[in-house]
Amino acid sequence: MKAPVRITGATRLYAIVGDPIVQVRSAEVFTQRFADEGIDAVLVPMQVSLDTFATIVPALMALGNLDGLLVTAPLKELLARYASRLGATAGCIGAVNALRREADGSWSGDMFDGAGFVRGVERKGERLRGRRVLLFGAGGAGGAIACALAEAGVRSIRIVSPDPLRNARLVAAVQGSFPDCDVASASARRDDIDMVVNASPVGMKPDDGLPGDIGRLTPDTLVGDVVVSEAPTALIRQAIDQGCRWVDGRDMHGGQIDAIMTFLAPRSSGARASG
Amino acid sequence: MKAPVRITGATRLYAIVGDPIVQVRSAEVFTQRFADEGIDAVLVPMQVSLDTFATIVPALMALGNLDGLLVTAPLKELLARYASRLGATAGCIGAVNALRREADGSWSGDMFDGAGFVRGVERKGERLRGRRVLLFGAGGAGGAIACALAEAGVRSIRIVSPDPLRNARLVAAVQGSFPDCDVASASARRDDIDMVVNASPVGMKPDDGLPGDIGRLTPDTLVGDVVVSEAPTALIRQAIDQGCRWVDGRDMHGGQIDAIMTFLAPRSSGARASG
Repeated sequence: MKAPVRITGATRLYAIVGDPIVQVRSAEVFTQRFADEGIDAVLVPMQVSLDTFATIVPALMALGNLDGLLVTAPLKELLARYASRLGATAGCIGAVNALRREADGSWSGDMFDGAGFVRGVERKGERLRGRRVLLFGAGGAGGAIACALAEAGVRSIRIVSPDPLRNARLVAAVQGSFPDCDVASASARRDDIDMVVNASPVGMKPDDGLPGDIGRLTPDTLVGDVVVSEAPTALIRQAIDQGCRWVDGRDMHGGQIDAIMTFLAPRSSGARASG
Repeated sequence: MKAPVRITGATRLYAIVGDPIVQVRSAEVFTQRFADEGIDAVLVPMQVSLDTFATIVPALMALGNLDGLLVTAPLKELLARYASRLGATAGCIGAVNALRREADGSWSGDMFDGAGFVRGVERKGERLRGRRVLLFGAGGAGGAIACALAEAGVRSIRIVSPDPLRNARLVAAVQGSFPDCDVASASARRDDIDMVVNASPVGMKPDDGLPGDIGRLTPDTLVGDVVVSEAPTALIRQAIDQGCRWVDGRDMHGGQIDAIMTFLAPRSSGARASG
């Protein structure tokens, strides 16, 4: 049973900023979460283009009753400029998808695309510490996941990307922020792996195959895929066939909502599973 | 039965701007009206101070999915500066309480404090055309009501105010905008009256008396009072005693909500009584 949504003069505001904006699900999802948790707040969509971003976003941050901002791609790097403080992942890749107003009026930002993946894995009871990861994709999602995995204590990350410059940049960024994690391009050093993660778009189309050479899966291999699709992707199907544990785009998405709730409204129950 | 409020990425935004903002009822009232009428829109509170007004309001007007703005006192004169087009009452007194985005992207503004009063009178089936009005108060409410009454075709308005300069200014403004209406300070020309309106704060305190010398009420005199109070004001009690027809602050408030709904969302049923 969903709690009714109410808006009064005392309701606190959060905004999801982007252009186009009509397709975003966050407005509905977070507004309902606020209502269900008895928090007098709503998340409203705000259509802000690349051209108007630099005018509108600082003005929104000056609204006395606005406590946080989310953004859609490709605004995540821009929004990072407005944070007075960045979380580890955001600092590593220079992008945020959420800003939060602190009690002193300053703004903290962080990137939850990777934290959502990590939380999705943890919610399934899987261990990350010590894992040796093969990661496909060095774009926005790949970067966020690489940082979040490093932060979660994986032993090594090998990155596969069709863009060598982007790949090298991500390797350097993660090395700089997380020196305890052994990170390299997979074409440089492959080594043994016990976790395969797809953070590339491969799998979004029904007839897509695997994102690349995933090597040999064993039942000990943990498989993750950021793609949200009706039917399991080729990678997830292979994981199921080999008896591996796996997390898919839905698990990551659920974990991300929880992680962002905890960040935006610390007194929320976002830390618990939302089902 | 109230319709449930939903917010999605496609929801259109309206804002009520002011500081403080927690006390405003518009957010709840209009959001529920939108829901009840099947309009996918919400009215959200936005805390904007005098200091931040000039930065934030233009930015809000640049939001691609924001279709209208309301303001609380004392921001009504400021907001009028941002309209490309003013309604008759707004043009007369130089203040608006609502801005609406037009299809071509321009912004129209108008002042509904007086229109609400007129609509409240009309909803009770009373005639305004040809009335000779004695009006107490030349402030924001008094000015808006004087204009709206002149626009509705009253024959004359005599204004009573403790501030002679404000009184003279309002007389001049209404004369300029509505030359067909005979408007003057009541201390200059009293004449016969068949309508008495209180737009002053007198009556807000339970032991307040009448707003001034109301002359002799007859059953033909229409009595109006903008004050919203638990018990009837002294003026309304006198109207009841003399068998007059009357409208009070609640009638005006209901009329105002309808008038603003019609303005903000022309496809709404605001033109009809909302009960």
